Amino acid sequence: MAVVYYSKTGNTKKVAELIAQGANLIETIEVKCMSIEEVDNEFLTEAKTVIFGSPTISGTFSWQIKQWLDTMRTVKFGGKLGAVFATANYVGGGAEVAELAMIGELLVKGMLVYSSGVADGQPFIHYGPVCIQDGDEGQKERARIFGERIAKKTVELFN
Amino acid sequence: MAVVYYSKTGNTKKVAELIAQGANLIETIEVKCMSIEEVDNEFLTEAKTVIFGSPTISGTFSWQIKQWLDTMRTVKFGGKLGAVFATANYVGGGAEVAELAMIGELLVKGMLVYSSGVADGQPFIHYGPVCIQDGDEGQKERARIFGERIAKKTVELFN
Amino acid sequence: MAVVYYSKTGNTKKVAELIAQGANLIETIEVKCMSIEEVDNEFLTEAKTVIFGSPTISGTFSWQIKQWLDTMRTVKFGGKLGAVFATANYVGGGAEVAELAMIGELLVKGMLVYSSGVADGQPFIHYGPVCIQDGDEGQKERARIFGERIAKKTVELFN
Amino acid sequence: MAVVYYSKTGNTKKVAELIAQGANLIETIEVKCMSIEEVDNEFLTEAKTVIFGSPTISGTFSWQIKQWLDTMRTVKFGGKLGAVFATANYVGGGAEVAELAMIGELLVKGMLVYSSGVADGQPFIHYGPVCIQDGDEGQKERARIFGERIAKKTVELFN
Repeated sequence: MAVVYYSKTGNTKKVAELIAQGANLIETIEVKCMSIEEVDNEFLTEAKTVIFGSPTISGTFSWQIKQWLDTMRTVKFGGKLGAVFATANYVGGGAEVAELAMIGELLVKGMLVYSSGVADGQPFIHYGPVCIQDGDEGQKERARIFGERIAKKTVELFN
Repeated sequence: MAVVYYSKTGNTKKVAELIAQGANLIETIEVKCMSIEEVDNEFLTEAKTVIFGSPTISGTFSWQIKQWLDTMRTVKFGGKLGAVFATANYVGGGAEVAELAMIGELLVKGMLVYSSGVADGQPFIHYGPVCIQDGDEGQKERARIFGERIAKKTVELFN
Repeated sequence: MAVVYYSKTGNTKKVAELIAQGANLIETIEVKCMSIEEVDNEFLTEAKTVIFGSPTISGTFSWQIKQWLDTMRTVKFGGKLGAVFATANYVGGGAEVAELAMIGELLVKGMLVYSSGVADGQPFIHYGPVCIQDGDEGQKERARIFGERIAKKTVELFN
Repeated sequence: MAVVYYSKTGNTKKVAELIAQGANLIETIEVKCMSIEEVDNEFLTEAKTVIFGSPTISGTFSWQIKQWLDTMRTVKFGGKLGAVFATANYVGGGAEVAELAMIGELLVKGMLVYSSGVADGQPFIHYGPVCIQDGDEGQKERARIFGERIAKKTVELFN
């Protein structure tokens, strides 16, 4: 399972690590965080699940992620489980639009997309976790729980 | 200038009133808040500007707003200035997706859509103000400022 | 596997049937089309996969679908496979926005969302098939193939 | 009035020129088409109205447009009229999602966004014109009419 992010200020990286922390609670899961600037293609190819994260830039996800998704040809994502998260500078900045836009990209790649939504009870995670900057306690906790839920779903689908 | 909202818990109504308060700072502007359940069609027809607000339900705006927009035939919105706001229960609930989806509706009606964005400096308001429940102080202040900015733009465009 | 749609003019119903036809090519799959006005809750509860379809109304999916999704409490969708399609009156009418907006709803319900994207080769199906009115030959063929792909994925995931 | 586009295959450029042709029907309007790779900053700064166009890449607008919008600091777009169009390879490719996503960017820049919608009668133009490749006759005509409508709105708002 991989967590792939682009981080400008370090906040998105921090949230990626919280998600990985949560995923690590599931014993059979091996997780690796990687910036799109230093991707481990071999690990990514083997990964059953990839979570993508972006800062919110002008109300949507960053062009660096879009460029990477559009020009990366080495790794095939079809059939993998995909999920997303975003950080933003303020409430209303567009983090959920960023998430839904990334979800569109993952569907085009042929991924199965999942967020857990309201089906696992509280906390609800509609499209993916959102942290304002690097997140308050509740937002951080939601990120960890999201990692755990995605890891559980990975085991359920692929083992 | 009208602020049209649907409110389930009362939060969206409260934010509508904050926006109206902000708009009232511009002297030549007359503002009226109305629920979609009690619309003053005459006022709405005369209004140069209409701001729409919705709670976020399952990650987007409520079906009541969609139904009202699709079945209301009395008022023509073409050429009016349009803007949006949303409330949500938690950060990441989808308020910005709700806003962008409502913006789509306003464009289809032939409205000019405006949010002020980053062009007026801080606070930035990307798609429209967002309040978590009825908003913390910063979110409430952003709602008032949004009302004022939209009122100013109304004067600029139509007077 | 269920195909659930709302149809105003009959076009969306026709496309639902094409999708069901495609799905029926996979032998182990039982498919049922149903309008949101006559839902077979028992079948829907048992279904591993649900495909939702809507006409495009004012640039997005119809309020009837939104209302149904938000007020239906009998059927739990969490963990099921979800997919979408849309019809529209003209190219540029907003069918893909309708699809992405419905996808958001399915994620909130905790579904796994899938479209096949570009991973299965031609025809590419980015978010879901789109038919202009009831579709030209290519669009109809894409709808059938979509049904078949979703049925295959259902077998792969749940059998 | 400027039409700013990114074109990979030449199709988006052709549609930009159709829009400019339509705009030129309004006598007092001066229109210039420009690729984001060769922008005339002076003209863009003076322009009252800017129309942005993109091919649809993986279901949304191209990273080149996003990069340009996010890194361009010379031209201020606040208060200008903004509008969008898109090309795509096939119906269902995501052109309308590309348009709505670009509209989000323009709002963040503080632009007034307009598409004419259904308010000017047929042809309806929900978010902006869409051409499949370089467009069939109806799509080309819609692009020209869109140019004319945006030019008229420019005169109405700014003269």
